[in-house]
Amino acid sequence: MEKGIKIVTIGGGSSYTPELVEGFIKRYDSLPVRELWLVDIPEGEEKLNIVGNLAKRMVKKAGLPIEVHLTLDRREALKDADFVTTQFRVGLLAARAKDERIPLKYNVIGQETNGPGGLFKGLRTIPIILDIVKDLEELCPNAWLINFTNPAGMVTEAVLRHSNWKRIVGLCNVPISIQMGIAKLLEVEASRVHVDFAGLNHMVFGLNVYLDGKNITPDFLEKMTKHKSDTMKNIAAIDWEPDFIKALGAIPCGYHRYYYKQAEMLQNELEEAAEQGTRAEVVQQLEKELFELYKDEHLDIKPPQLEKRGGAYYSDAACSLIDSMYNDRRDIQPVNTINNGAIASIPDESAVEISSIITKEGPKPITIGDLPVAVRGLVQQIKSFERVAAEAAVTGNYHTALLAMTINPLLPSDKVAKQILDEMLEAHKEHLPQFFKEEVLS
Amino acid sequence: MEKGIKIVTIGGGSSYTPELVEGFIKRYDSLPVRELWLVDIPEGEEKLNIVGNLAKRMVKKAGLPIEVHLTLDRREALKDADFVTTQFRVGLLAARAKDERIPLKYNVIGQETNGPGGLFKGLRTIPIILDIVKDLEELCPNAWLINFTNPAGMVTEAVLRHSNWKRIVGLCNVPISIQMGIAKLLEVEASRVHVDFAGLNHMVFGLNVYLDGKNITPDFLEKMTKHKSDTMKNIAAIDWEPDFIKALGAIPCGYHRYYYKQAEMLQNELEEAAEQGTRAEVVQQLEKELFELYKDEHLDIKPPQLEKRGGAYYSDAACSLIDSMYNDRRDIQPVNTINNGAIASIPDESAVEISSIITKEGPKPITIGDLPVAVRGLVQQIKSFERVAAEAAVTGNYHTALLAMTINPLLPSDKVAKQILDEMLEAHKEHLPQFFKEEVLS
Amino acid sequence: MEKGIKIVTIGGGSSYTPELVEGFIKRYDSLPVRELWLVDIPEGEEKLNIVGNLAKRMVKKAGLPIEVHLTLDRREALKDADFVTTQFRVGLLAARAKDERIPLKYNVIGQETNGPGGLFKGLRTIPIILDIVKDLEELCPNAWLINFTNPAGMVTEAVLRHSNWKRIVGLCNVPISIQMGIAKLLEVEASRVHVDFAGLNHMVFGLNVYLDGKNITPDFLEKMTKHKSDTMKNIAAIDWEPDFIKALGAIPCGYHRYYYKQAEMLQNELEEAAEQGTRAEVVQQLEKELFELYKDEHLDIKPPQLEKRGGAYYSDAACSLIDSMYNDRRDIQPVNTINNGAIASIPDESAVEISSIITKEGPKPITIGDLPVAVRGLVQQIKSFERVAAEAAVTGNYHTALLAMTINPLLPSDKVAKQILDEMLEAHKEHLPQFFKEEVLS
Amino acid sequence: MEKGIKIVTIGGGSSYTPELVEGFIKRYDSLPVRELWLVDIPEGEEKLNIVGNLAKRMVKKAGLPIEVHLTLDRREALKDADFVTTQFRVGLLAARAKDERIPLKYNVIGQETNGPGGLFKGLRTIPIILDIVKDLEELCPNAWLINFTNPAGMVTEAVLRHSNWKRIVGLCNVPISIQMGIAKLLEVEASRVHVDFAGLNHMVFGLNVYLDGKNITPDFLEKMTKHKSDTMKNIAAIDWEPDFIKALGAIPCGYHRYYYKQAEMLQNELEEAAEQGTRAEVVQQLEKELFELYKDEHLDIKPPQLEKRGGAYYSDAACSLIDSMYNDRRDIQPVNTINNGAIASIPDESAVEISSIITKEGPKPITIGDLPVAVRGLVQQIKSFERVAAEAAVTGNYHTALLAMTINPLLPSDKVAKQILDEMLEAHKEHLPQFFKEEVLS
Repeated sequence: MEKGIKIVTIGGGSSYTPELVEGFIKRYDSLPVRELWLVDIPEGEEKLNIVGNLAKRMVKKAGLPIEVHLTLDRREALKDADFVTTQFRVGLLAARAKDERIPLKYNVIGQETNGPGGLFKGLRTIPIILDIVKDLEELCPNAWLINFTNPAGMVTEAVLRHSNWKRIVGLCNVPISIQMGIAKLLEVEASRVHVDFAGLNHMVFGLNVYLDGKNITPDFLEKMTKHKSDTMKNIAAIDWEPDFIKALGAIPCGYHRYYYKQAEMLQNELEEAAEQGTRAEVVQQLEKELFELYKDEHLDIKPPQLEKRGGAYYSDAACSLIDSMYNDRRDIQPVNTINNGAIASIPDESAVEISSIITKEGPKPITIGDLPVAVRGLVQQIKSFERVAAEAAVTGNYHTALLAMTINPLLPSDKVAKQILDEMLEAHKEHLPQFFKEEVLS
Repeated sequence: MEKGIKIVTIGGGSSYTPELVEGFIKRYDSLPVRELWLVDIPEGEEKLNIVGNLAKRMVKKAGLPIEVHLTLDRREALKDADFVTTQFRVGLLAARAKDERIPLKYNVIGQETNGPGGLFKGLRTIPIILDIVKDLEELCPNAWLINFTNPAGMVTEAVLRHSNWKRIVGLCNVPISIQMGIAKLLEVEASRVHVDFAGLNHMVFGLNVYLDGKNITPDFLEKMTKHKSDTMKNIAAIDWEPDFIKALGAIPCGYHRYYYKQAEMLQNELEEAAEQGTRAEVVQQLEKELFELYKDEHLDIKPPQLEKRGGAYYSDAACSLIDSMYNDRRDIQPVNTINNGAIASIPDESAVEISSIITKEGPKPITIGDLPVAVRGLVQQIKSFERVAAEAAVTGNYHTALLAMTINPLLPSDKVAKQILDEMLEAHKEHLPQFFKEEVLS
Repeated sequence: MEKGIKIVTIGGGSSYTPELVEGFIKRYDSLPVRELWLVDIPEGEEKLNIVGNLAKRMVKKAGLPIEVHLTLDRREALKDADFVTTQFRVGLLAARAKDERIPLKYNVIGQETNGPGGLFKGLRTIPIILDIVKDLEELCPNAWLINFTNPAGMVTEAVLRHSNWKRIVGLCNVPISIQMGIAKLLEVEASRVHVDFAGLNHMVFGLNVYLDGKNITPDFLEKMTKHKSDTMKNIAAIDWEPDFIKALGAIPCGYHRYYYKQAEMLQNELEEAAEQGTRAEVVQQLEKELFELYKDEHLDIKPPQLEKRGGAYYSDAACSLIDSMYNDRRDIQPVNTINNGAIASIPDESAVEISSIITKEGPKPITIGDLPVAVRGLVQQIKSFERVAAEAAVTGNYHTALLAMTINPLLPSDKVAKQILDEMLEAHKEHLPQFFKEEVLS
Repeated sequence: MEKGIKIVTIGGGSSYTPELVEGFIKRYDSLPVRELWLVDIPEGEEKLNIVGNLAKRMVKKAGLPIEVHLTLDRREALKDADFVTTQFRVGLLAARAKDERIPLKYNVIGQETNGPGGLFKGLRTIPIILDIVKDLEELCPNAWLINFTNPAGMVTEAVLRHSNWKRIVGLCNVPISIQMGIAKLLEVEASRVHVDFAGLNHMVFGLNVYLDGKNITPDFLEKMTKHKSDTMKNIAAIDWEPDFIKALGAIPCGYHRYYYKQAEMLQNELEEAAEQGTRAEVVQQLEKELFELYKDEHLDIKPPQLEKRGGAYYSDAACSLIDSMYNDRRDIQPVNTINNGAIASIPDESAVEISSIITKEGPKPITIGDLPVAVRGLVQQIKSFERVAAEAAVTGNYHTALLAMTINPLLPSDKVAKQILDEMLEAHKEHLPQFFKEEVLS
């Protein structure tokens, strides 16, 4: 790597790309990126060009020798890459809108990474990611795959269990957002706060909170229950029951509301969908506006409007991870990686989201023993769901998909599960060829 | 034990007692019961006398030298007992009616052993059973406690974790009912059918079905989906989705409907409660009629009307277990016992319901490796619930009880959990002294 | 199997075969063997004919319709077999003699199934058994392989880990000999004694002893220390330290002497080798005499002299296992099978020797939780040894073989391990082709 | 802790104390020690005064406001301590000499922390350390106990399992010595080398070696086999078999020689004991000389002669650990701490020696999954030994002690174990009161 680093971003035409570019620019001293390849599919060519040109202007303004390449040829881009990041969305926001709308018709939460929506995003995404890792094996076997594509937990699980590729780290901005939120609530600098994260992607808990190294968890939980909730952009900020949080003894993430406040979240979604549209529909409009901004040839920085899009700390989390890996920093970051015994009641070979030491040879989880008794069951249920869903994505087996759908805790019954499954399979047919091969269908 | 066996039945005034007496009579040759002590509390004295006198008539008719003792003095009865069976109900059917009615007000399933009802039955029962095992330690340390009192899983868990008493077996008629149902469907004698049972009480799966030793599971599941469901008396027989059962690859028990068909079961309960009353209310009427029958001094057999009460195979399961223990038969029976590694993803020290070798020194589970991936999560969630609930029952801690309630998969949110908890604590106040000690309350 | 059972015995020319034939004859009513195929290799043809003709005379005398086939064509024999038993010895007793003699030169125990001898018997045997299971997959996929070939633990481990064949049971007469010894010492019928066996082949412990179902372990251990040891024919009966046995709290098997009495056993071996020859050398003479007897055309029963050979209860253990499998008896027998969680500190996928329920679909271990703390380490060390040895046998890798040799607890150092390894590799060259392929050697 | 740190060193009269004092002086900027209490027993008063006065001169020379207190009153010293270090030796070097001499009479390795010597050092030490933690609970419940007293693994195990005190870290200079040796061999600065350490105290492996973050393990092992061994002062540097090291695939520690080179090490010990005396006898002379030096009132630095004593990097390891804890550095150091799932085949509650994140709230192990198959058995055997030994130390049970002795892999038989046990119990009678209480003796 002496000659600088080659980074490939699959789904490079995403509106998030400027975040990433800004991150590389800021960290150039310790992370000297020489080539940044933005890859997309033909349908995304226009957006790739718009955002790619913005990236070039940003680099130029920074005066750095980073080459930005735009291409539709994934294999050309991947050759000898050092880090490959994935941030693509199969079926674009139109598919997400279906993931959100269809379940709501059945009074079931429609959400990008949870419930039926999460299942279908997985079914569409996993075959593509498995194709990509086959390319990696061939073209850049020493690269690390940094996956941001949701559902990141299920995708990481699928790669770990259904491919030979082990050099994958799944990344999410939920843990860092929790940490920042804690610092804000405590009115201290974020660097003074540490959190033991453990669980699964979008089902991660802050088990302990430390201020200057001292465990302040009970005090913090007390404080937390006295403030209005402040969640991520895409999750309704319905307040927790204070007594429940104290009883839980750990900090849930925003997505836990879909499970511990299922009724209220569903109600909220139904109202929002009626009034302003689902999140995908809102984001579609936001994206349109962002790309209009990006087209401006005078724009050569990340525009502040991007923050509304929802990926807070995205750049920080991603670049900081790549920087620590490249420089073997051995600092602690929360990532999705193979469990390897760090959480007792999750299978060793499964993906978990956990505070880990970040080294040049990948993340090494810090053992936590086990999750609190009260939360183990739900976490294990979501892990079971992820595993069955990943198997359905790989095999295209209808029964396996129905099993995944039915055991998801957001579904009210096997009957409703089947109804939603059938309607969604039909709606996403174009992106689910594995389910429509004649011989597998029955 | 040379001189015959002493059996003590706590809650001896139960309408089920004639089942048990019939069982002992039928098995007298191999299981020579010398003393049967029926114990009850003052409030149950009248029923105890009615059913106890029937028991005496049954024994007399059989011409056997079994002494039947009726007493309100538990400690007198327990002295040197060989087997102690527990079948009491704290708060009687009136309490059960509350367990069923109150949750329904919040659109939550009201059921004796699941959801809020199961939690509160546990909260009322566990302190009493822990009192009983203290007596056992002192008065009959070599006895075995055979517990039928529901929620049998949570009760067994509580004794294993919160007492020093390890000689407990929890018993339930669900597995034997499944086995009988399979034999009926296959139109073969029950003795030709074997089932590998594993899971938790009221959350047990038939993992494999054997006919004459041959594993016929997939064929049986196919056949099962083609027949109308036939469940236990207290569970609505709503049909499973055939595709779901095939995907599951194992036989669920009737109580699984509360989880995999939550919406339909709730709907059904709401309708039944409005039309004919909850199950407790129906049973209260049934019991009244039964005790009228029992009073008849000419009755000296178990009356056939008892079958409507719902405890099919109860006598068979109980007496067969005691017989195998007494005679060290080393045959295979499904019981609730300490896991000890038999099911990988359940803690070793927890109670599980599993096919076990029955010996004079207690049951020894046959290892099953692990549950199918798809069902692990739900089973673990119920086990987490049972453990937190047992802790709440022992400590009387409000927050722990709220935690148990909220993590139960039948609850829609932390807010509703708190509402139901508060109303039920008040409603059952009389039987929950541990929650109303001044110093613990907050 | 309606038309009778087809059994194939590989290594059919063994002097033990009459044991097996006698067992089948005695059990004909419940285990109607129709065809018994005795298979051997060209070098064993003469012995095959001698013992095969005796088998035919025994069957004829019994008046049973069992066809006895003698063949050198393994694949012909295997077609549609129901049970395949393996009792072959690669390199015959001459190889065993080397396994015993060479280590003694280095002051290391020379023994057929332990230490360097056990390792080399495994290295010679495992490739052959893996060839056999390939034939089974093709020619009789529903058959069960009942393996008696030593080292039975390592062989079972190798099949479980290095082939796709799971229908294997490893069988040994050590546990049944222990049980018989206990009954003899207690002066009761063997059927009144039960023992919880757990551990590995030739490293199995009797964890608990029951008389009529009552756990009498401490009393029995006390009694055991007061009597002269009585071991199997091939193990020197050096008495245990009484205090050690009481401290151990479990019954060791005879082979444990090689570990817990290493010094005395080595001394004894050195003396015996000098005076009367090693066990193989003694047995070679015994075998010669036996085959002389077998040649007698008037002999039509198992000759009593066979008992000196050392396979006490061999017929009982083998035929009783096959009978229970064929008839789905679900009784308890100690066998070598996949652990599957039954012993906590042994890997789930490894072979263990353990009391199991015997069914038509194979053995199912009864969970024991874990071995006593004191013995776990040694058992785990032998399991590590077996696994590394199996890998060496499969790969023919010199370093792996050295690793296996060095970590064996009977070896005094890496240096001596290497010396013995080098000498034994050379001595057994003919039967270890996998180590002498040019490309693998270094 | 704002006002500076209070450190208590039990066994403060040790010749090692100047190492520790030097470490605190060097790190004063980040680790502002305000009080250093050196505690010893009456028999050690003279040495305490000599070394304590040297400590005072060293502090004075450094011009730092550290108060050095010398006392025989442990409880006075412990009040409100922040860190308590233990480096005492029950029975002094005279006892160690017996630990080394007696086993040699039976042709068994005599060593301070392995075999019979390790067992007896544990039997003498554990009751004292359990007394100390009772004082800690009362007098300084927020302190951390940093234990250097050998056998450090067994001592940490005993505290974790037989007391309520969890704030203990066991420390050893073996891992840091390995790391320094690697850097020296690679001719690079130590800071560029990382090693994944895992195992038990004095049974730790370097599983992977990294240079600048890159895993270079196989290359390093190759290189390592080409150089003369360089071990710690107290272990004979007998070279490993190169092929064994390559096959092992991990770096053993010096003490592994007692197991993998048992024959040669015993031979070497026998020769050295005859020629120059055992290590204790050599050290006794060294200590005498050191204390002569320490008496010199002009000496105000750590004398260079101390290095011969054998505690290389002792100061570094100890002060660096305390510094990281005090400052919550979250860097990686190898320590003895509770396993908590970090090494799969060691019980969760046991002490392991493992690379851990060092925080203000103690060490958190980095999960390693499991040890290589080949070494698991030996490590588990030593852990079994440690656990049985700790139990013997606490109970004073003769049988338990015999069990510990017999299962130790350095013992050749139960008979020899008993002989050595009996002789050593008698020899150390004065320091083993728990074995000589009348009622426990038998």
